[in-house]
Amino acid sequence: MNQAILLDKRPLGRPKLSDFKFVAEALPEIEADEIMLKTSYVSVDPYLRGRMNSAKSYVAPFELQKPISSGVIAEVIESRHKRFQTGDFVSGLLEWKEYQKSKGEGLIKVDADKAPLSAYLGVLGMTGLTAKLGLSEIGLPREGETMVVSGAAGAVGSVAGQIGKIMGCRVVGIAGSDEKVEMLRSEFGFDEAINYKTTPHMRKAIAAACPEGVDVYFDNVGGAISDAVMVHINQFARIVVCGAISVYNETSLPQSMSVQPLLVRNSALMQGFIVSNYQAKFREAMMQLSRWLAEGKLKYTETIVEGFDQIPQAFMDLFDGRNKGKLVVKI
Amino acid sequence: MNQAILLDKRPLGRPKLSDFKFVAEALPEIEADEIMLKTSYVSVDPYLRGRMNSAKSYVAPFELQKPISSGVIAEVIESRHKRFQTGDFVSGLLEWKEYQKSKGEGLIKVDADKAPLSAYLGVLGMTGLTAKLGLSEIGLPREGETMVVSGAAGAVGSVAGQIGKIMGCRVVGIAGSDEKVEMLRSEFGFDEAINYKTTPHMRKAIAAACPEGVDVYFDNVGGAISDAVMVHINQFARIVVCGAISVYNETSLPQSMSVQPLLVRNSALMQGFIVSNYQAKFREAMMQLSRWLAEGKLKYTETIVEGFDQIPQAFMDLFDGRNKGKLVVKI
Repeated sequence: MNQAILLDKRPLGRPKLSDFKFVAEALPEIEADEIMLKTSYVSVDPYLRGRMNSAKSYVAPFELQKPISSGVIAEVIESRHKRFQTGDFVSGLLEWKEYQKSKGEGLIKVDADKAPLSAYLGVLGMTGLTAKLGLSEIGLPREGETMVVSGAAGAVGSVAGQIGKIMGCRVVGIAGSDEKVEMLRSEFGFDEAINYKTTPHMRKAIAAACPEGVDVYFDNVGGAISDAVMVHINQFARIVVCGAISVYNETSLPQSMSVQPLLVRNSALMQGFIVSNYQAKFREAMMQLSRWLAEGKLKYTETIVEGFDQIPQAFMDLFDGRNKGKLVVKI
Repeated sequence: MNQAILLDKRPLGRPKLSDFKFVAEALPEIEADEIMLKTSYVSVDPYLRGRMNSAKSYVAPFELQKPISSGVIAEVIESRHKRFQTGDFVSGLLEWKEYQKSKGEGLIKVDADKAPLSAYLGVLGMTGLTAKLGLSEIGLPREGETMVVSGAAGAVGSVAGQIGKIMGCRVVGIAGSDEKVEMLRSEFGFDEAINYKTTPHMRKAIAAACPEGVDVYFDNVGGAISDAVMVHINQFARIVVCGAISVYNETSLPQSMSVQPLLVRNSALMQGFIVSNYQAKFREAMMQLSRWLAEGKLKYTETIVEGFDQIPQAFMDLFDGRNKGKLVVKI
């Protein structure tokens, strides 16, 4: 039998285990031009929370009683498709199932010899591309500028901050534990890192860490942390609004500081970034990320949880900030 | 004697008459390469409120006990400068004085035969340029899109909405009286107009007026009105943050809806716009505005108050929304 994870209820606020349902189903059989896939790694990402609501968004909501899907690395264990062979590994948007068949559309072959398979969900996958393209398309960090990253110890944030350093910026990270803060400084080369959970006056802390103000803000969290950063933006600042994890579980429209006066006063730009809008630039960006990785300029960290049955819990843990770097589930 | 208006105190919240001081001073005398100017029209603008605070902004704060300055049309009544002759009219950033001398820097000659002098402070001046360049640089309205303008009956808003119509958009204006709403529809050709003061559910009203959502939002007001518009933005919406008059008089950082989740979900762009950053484009934009005006595609309205002693009161009236279109003081 095959296991699948369905969305049983739309979460109200914070997701609960009971919002998910495990079901057993018959193993599929492949036909001509199809492949059979065995799931190796599953990516759990904050943005999936949005798809669990019924509201319109940039991707369609998940349907109730249907399998959830996310970034997955899978092994081809049977092929009747000329582009794939048994033993190939592929990356793609796939369902939360132990086994599934596919016609190969949207799947990219990944090379297990060049990088660990899980890296293709992280630094060489959507999260790396999000950091890279969010900066090269919107943030535009320039040498000598100051860049602040929130959610800095997360999958996207840790890459974004390192790219800021490669570009010659002073980089300040905001994260939620002393351990993460230490990691940002010692492993990822951030100039400063702030633990927002133990810092009583975030606005003062950011002022101290950014004596020349903030030119680029790579924002993964929104909410009060962003308010504290926004009051320090400089003329012509660019704010990449990549995520708002602090408010994803809110059931009503959250209130925070009115950004409009700050944007006017500073001629600043604030733009929502969704990596899937930039597919034409994926190939080039991926090559750049691979080069930086090979040159040792880019490091990454990941948290690997084991077991298909752990996927919902791993997803829920994202909202506690338990992960360092990319959170993946190994099957 | 000559009269001048100084900033006596930095306003706390809403400006009061007692924040301003009228002083009499000796008439200046011109030297070589100078001109003597007699003030004809003074522009009062919401952005001046920001300069009355001590906080850093895109222009330096006004100094206490020094004359306030704004856009002014003046007549050259004496000239020892080769570029200007007695009887010329000029437009520039000048002080709130009946008479002042100048070396001519930053002054532009205006043609009283081509348009009424006051128009050079409005539709053919900074306010027209603000509407035109805010749209051609950030808003980018395209045929068939929906554009919302707040502060729509104001100097900038009424021009912005008409440019939206020229570009082929459905244009919806928000204003603060039935008379203004009627003017937007009948005189300026807006498709819909909403009186926010008498509309109990602004979010529903905007949904009804914008059945296909909002692609461009030209925002002059910020605050709760903008919250009601922002929840209806479409994918790839562009928000020109041109002003935030609703919060200029707030003494603490105002709270409003958190825009970050909406920006992410819609890959939307929100950018503060300050016209003085686009000086290289003034000439071309001004020519376009003149053509539209000559072709009858662009109309304008203005409120003219008379008397040098009325300048502070006229400025304060801006925050009551008493003006229709550009508010100027005729001296």
